[in-house]
Amino acid sequence: MTKAVVLAERPVGMPKQSDFAVIETDLADPADGEIQVKNVCMSVDPYMRGRMVDRKSYVPPFQIGEVLTGGSIGQVTASNHAGFAVGDYVSSHYGWREAYTAPVEGIEKLGDIVAPPSAYLGAIGMPGMTAYVGLLEVGALKQGETVFVSGAAGAVGSIVGQIAKLKGCRVLGSAGSADKVEWLQDELGFDYAFNYKAGDLLSHLREGAPDGLDVYFDNVGGDHLQAAIMHMRPFGRIPLCGAISMYNDVEPPPGPNNLAMAIGLGLTLRGFIVSHFNHLSVQFRKDMEGWVTSGQIKYQETVYEGIDGAADAFIGLFTGANTGKMIVNF
Amino acid sequence: MTKAVVLAERPVGMPKQSDFAVIETDLADPADGEIQVKNVCMSVDPYMRGRMVDRKSYVPPFQIGEVLTGGSIGQVTASNHAGFAVGDYVSSHYGWREAYTAPVEGIEKLGDIVAPPSAYLGAIGMPGMTAYVGLLEVGALKQGETVFVSGAAGAVGSIVGQIAKLKGCRVLGSAGSADKVEWLQDELGFDYAFNYKAGDLLSHLREGAPDGLDVYFDNVGGDHLQAAIMHMRPFGRIPLCGAISMYNDVEPPPGPNNLAMAIGLGLTLRGFIVSHFNHLSVQFRKDMEGWVTSGQIKYQETVYEGIDGAADAFIGLFTGANTGKMIVNF
Repeated sequence: MTKAVVLAERPVGMPKQSDFAVIETDLADPADGEIQVKNVCMSVDPYMRGRMVDRKSYVPPFQIGEVLTGGSIGQVTASNHAGFAVGDYVSSHYGWREAYTAPVEGIEKLGDIVAPPSAYLGAIGMPGMTAYVGLLEVGALKQGETVFVSGAAGAVGSIVGQIAKLKGCRVLGSAGSADKVEWLQDELGFDYAFNYKAGDLLSHLREGAPDGLDVYFDNVGGDHLQAAIMHMRPFGRIPLCGAISMYNDVEPPPGPNNLAMAIGLGLTLRGFIVSHFNHLSVQFRKDMEGWVTSGQIKYQETVYEGIDGAADAFIGLFTGANTGKMIVNF
Repeated sequence: MTKAVVLAERPVGMPKQSDFAVIETDLADPADGEIQVKNVCMSVDPYMRGRMVDRKSYVPPFQIGEVLTGGSIGQVTASNHAGFAVGDYVSSHYGWREAYTAPVEGIEKLGDIVAPPSAYLGAIGMPGMTAYVGLLEVGALKQGETVFVSGAAGAVGSIVGQIAKLKGCRVLGSAGSADKVEWLQDELGFDYAFNYKAGDLLSHLREGAPDGLDVYFDNVGGDHLQAAIMHMRPFGRIPLCGAISMYNDVEPPPGPNNLAMAIGLGLTLRGFIVSHFNHLSVQFRKDMEGWVTSGQIKYQETVYEGIDGAADAFIGLFTGANTGKMIVNF
């Protein structure tokens, strides 16, 4: 027997403990072409909130009573496939469970790893690659530009800021607490970080970037997006990566009331998800493993322990409980 | 003496006659490097509304009591510059006046023209080039795609739709009267045109484009933009060209409440103005003169007579008085 988390109820507004339930399930021996894996750690990510709503989206909704899915890193404990040996580290979407048996399709063998397994859920995983493609491809960042990233202390935002610094840019970031702001400035080298709960967004942007913004990497939507549009330089780019400020809203909030400014300024707002750029995954892993092992990119994790901590970890994403990547360890 | 129109008051909401005044001014003889021009026709365009507000924008605001400016076509009546001869057609920003004397800087000699002068304020002028660069460069239109254009019976929209048809696309358009809808379908070859005042926008889009939209060319903003976002196909492009539905609003209306859909769909919203693409003006004129003389692109004008009709022509842009290009003839 092994434990897993199912969706008990569809959350309305902010998700709560009772929306989730831990169940026990059988763990089968691997049939031909299958492997059995014990998860080492799993990821909780803001995008999962969208899948808890029953609506058409870029990924189908979770179903009530089914085990949730999401990124996880595990080790093979039994193999019935020639390509996988016991002890191999694998990355899969079979998160939210302690262990699983499954066909190898969609399961990636990590090969040699240069950092702890959990880094492959964060800086060297999906959030890191989201930052990388969003900033360099979607945002078309150029040396010496000024970049603002919201949700800057999060798994994606903290990497966005550091890549921008590596590229010789001035970097601004917003976060939701004084501790996070301090971490961004003192540890990650942000040029200007601020607590968005204190003071006016636009005043902060004007202080941190007197000449305006070339790129705004949007993780939150809402007021942040509107303030950033107001402060963009001509031909600025706005990668739209997430709208965490809105994920728990029952009614969709109004959009930015100044989108027409994009006309005269020649702004580009471009939405993306990381899977649109899967063709860059090899280049990303090579670059990011290099930056992480050299210490040029730092990461921090907020860790919850055990399958029983998974729901709390997820809920914590929306209450600002994490600095850097939110991880559940098994 | 010659007549010209000054801004008498800054319009609040919908512009009205008393916001404008016709004055008489002297017409000087051309000094060295100057020419004297009698205007043949002038343009009124929606973007001018923005310049009547005292705020920072991509073009500086008009000043109270000063003669307005805007596109005009005229003929040289006296020349003190070797490059210009009496009788030459010229395009300038010295609209809103019957005649002027000015240095030649910023005045373009049209050379041989293949259509009536007013066409160089419309299909072969700024609105036509706006359509051309917006659709082909900003919208990156591809053969066989499905395109929706709002304000489709206007000077820009009517050209957008016809270029898209020339490129083998399915074309939808919205306009504000049954007559305009009929013109779009019967004369311009739109595949599906509808009156946005009748019925629900999204229902119209679903009927006209059951498989969704690849490109939405936005001339109006507001509800149209929100409905189009709802119906875009993955990786769709939205050139943001104008927001005529909002130009007379005293308070900025909320933006689209579904902008977060751009994330999963990988949509691009990109604002532009025609001067960002001045490097394409030679290619544009060659292409468009060819399409107009061959009859592949048709245009229609709504004409007001004389300098006293200029304010009415301008106000008419916002009441739907024009089909195709709004022109003032002298």
